Amino acid sequence: MDKIRDTIKKIRGLDAALMQETQARLDNLTKPLGSLGRLEELTRQVCGITATHTPSLRNKVIFTLAADHGVTEEGVSPYPKEVTAQMVYNFLNGGAGINVLANHVGARVVVVDIGVASDLRPDQRLVIKKINYGTKNMAKGAAMAREEAVKSICAGIEVFQEEFARGIDIAGIGEMGIGNTTSASAITASYTKKPVEDLAGRGAGLDDEGLKNKIAIIKKAISINKPDPADPIDVLSKVGGFEIGGMVGIILCAASSRVPVVIDGFISGAAALVAYHLEPKVKEYMIAAHVSAERGHQVILDHIGLKPLFDLNLRLGEGTGAALGIGLADASIKILTQMASFKSARVSKRVG
Amino acid sequence: MDKIRDTIKKIRGLDAALMQETQARLDNLTKPLGSLGRLEELTRQVCGITATHTPSLRNKVIFTLAADHGVTEEGVSPYPKEVTAQMVYNFLNGGAGINVLANHVGARVVVVDIGVASDLRPDQRLVIKKINYGTKNMAKGAAMAREEAVKSICAGIEVFQEEFARGIDIAGIGEMGIGNTTSASAITASYTKKPVEDLAGRGAGLDDEGLKNKIAIIKKAISINKPDPADPIDVLSKVGGFEIGGMVGIILCAASSRVPVVIDGFISGAAALVAYHLEPKVKEYMIAAHVSAERGHQVILDHIGLKPLFDLNLRLGEGTGAALGIGLADASIKILTQMASFKSARVSKRVG
Repeated sequence: MDKIRDTIKKIRGLDAALMQETQARLDNLTKPLGSLGRLEELTRQVCGITATHTPSLRNKVIFTLAADHGVTEEGVSPYPKEVTAQMVYNFLNGGAGINVLANHVGARVVVVDIGVASDLRPDQRLVIKKINYGTKNMAKGAAMAREEAVKSICAGIEVFQEEFARGIDIAGIGEMGIGNTTSASAITASYTKKPVEDLAGRGAGLDDEGLKNKIAIIKKAISINKPDPADPIDVLSKVGGFEIGGMVGIILCAASSRVPVVIDGFISGAAALVAYHLEPKVKEYMIAAHVSAERGHQVILDHIGLKPLFDLNLRLGEGTGAALGIGLADASIKILTQMASFKSARVSKRVG
Repeated sequence: MDKIRDTIKKIRGLDAALMQETQARLDNLTKPLGSLGRLEELTRQVCGITATHTPSLRNKVIFTLAADHGVTEEGVSPYPKEVTAQMVYNFLNGGAGINVLANHVGARVVVVDIGVASDLRPDQRLVIKKINYGTKNMAKGAAMAREEAVKSICAGIEVFQEEFARGIDIAGIGEMGIGNTTSASAITASYTKKPVEDLAGRGAGLDDEGLKNKIAIIKKAISINKPDPADPIDVLSKVGGFEIGGMVGIILCAASSRVPVVIDGFISGAAALVAYHLEPKVKEYMIAAHVSAERGHQVILDHIGLKPLFDLNLRLGEGTGAALGIGLADASIKILTQMASFKSARVSKRVG
């Protein structure tokens, strides 16, 4: 718990004066005032986060955390649980969606085994922070011990710190874990008190019958475990997942290190929810890339008060939406640092 | 007119069989079915347009067309008309928003003087297709002669053809022209019959008084000129602009050359409207990058039936939104060509 407390203690507000100054600089660039809309908001936010006049977003890192979920034994996913491990190999071999989109925006992907149910083949590129071999079935009891929840957050902090030593200017978070929309739904229901029916979606592609079963399982998990929203560690341990805990740690540590952190979809959103309830200041460090096709994600964004950059009906996870968000943040900073001013380009300013 | 007719005659429908096959290939990649949402739609569209199994979007070209508008003498813009020429120099020097965002996505910018009110300093990189020294004041009569409208479309076709010889895999269109939201509003009103009040926006930043005046001027221009929506050349000549005509030509020629063309904001949208009414088949070749903060743009998109990829509250023009749209199209093709299949990555497919 000390590591989490210390990390949270280091989180400061954004540099408001610098953000104002950034807007003044944007207003001097050769474009009508405010005409780059949300890109300008992003520029201000990144400057405020990094407390830098001319940030460079050269080092882009996407953390993709993988873990298994005991609740899969309730048939909440159309994919077999083995896919979690198989996809980790796919990440390492560069064949997954996140590899393609991370490459597209010039980001490197850090793949973390934080709780895959099997031992993975040794690979130098794989970061191993395994808390356990998957969570337990939350429909029958707590998904993990309270201590494991703390450990998973600490593991996320460590992963960020290790990568930060190599350089991170902007981070994205994503995940892989068969069954984890079930966990994200339970977390979201615990915090927002919305009916599970309004939160739970088809995940990787459930049919009507499967969705009905999933909703019942989520309700059962909540009624059996009674997660206490006033105690985020309790929520995480009872209905969470190791990858979700790890992402909580990454968010906290990014904020404490003044690094913008781009949230991906529904499951990353659930981690954002837990991090936000641990320390509301992290909200200012978060960039919501998109709103997922999983309906619970919009509920999370509304609850925290985040406005997504785009809505492309994505529901892949892994950090794919975050990658595209990182690309936009990069563009927003280039606007600030590469555009000419009215003066330097000898362009007349507006009349009156 | 022959050039326009010949170009239109060459426009074919998309390759529907190939689009189906593309979706089947997407469905074999290591991700839940359909989980990349609108990116998958883009993949299919680009494959259908190019009639290619594995398109490469290496050559990305954004055409930024500049022209002046006589209607500026009615005070419809807060910026002096000279800014059009000044911004052309800015484009050539690489200091404008479009330069930064085009670089960001790896596109080259082709800057065209199709009707700037002054003679610009010679510059090898500037394409000169000047139809006239700006349009006439449409509040007092036709903006241009019918023959000039035809010429401006032909000029767009030529610009595209010349660049196509150097290689274009995907095109974007954008513009610069002080006063051109007034022209775009009049075109949009002519086609959609919506009240001008619901179409006209603040452009580069008009105040309430200025907006009221702009609306009155647009109404006056329509009532004096009576543009005939059944005759797109008539609409273009009476209330259009040379850059709008040029973009119409580029859209037609892109479609006839099986090149996807990414539409930027409101003014490019007005060109899309004219092109669509010349030949509805061009719709399938268009990608609507975003919906502009200028309210008339949504009206255009609804009229044609295009769904924008994102809404970032942009209203800069120049092709800036199109640049970001090109980046997404590029990402969508990389998904198809770079992701592993379930088989190649040895990932289990869904159960049942």
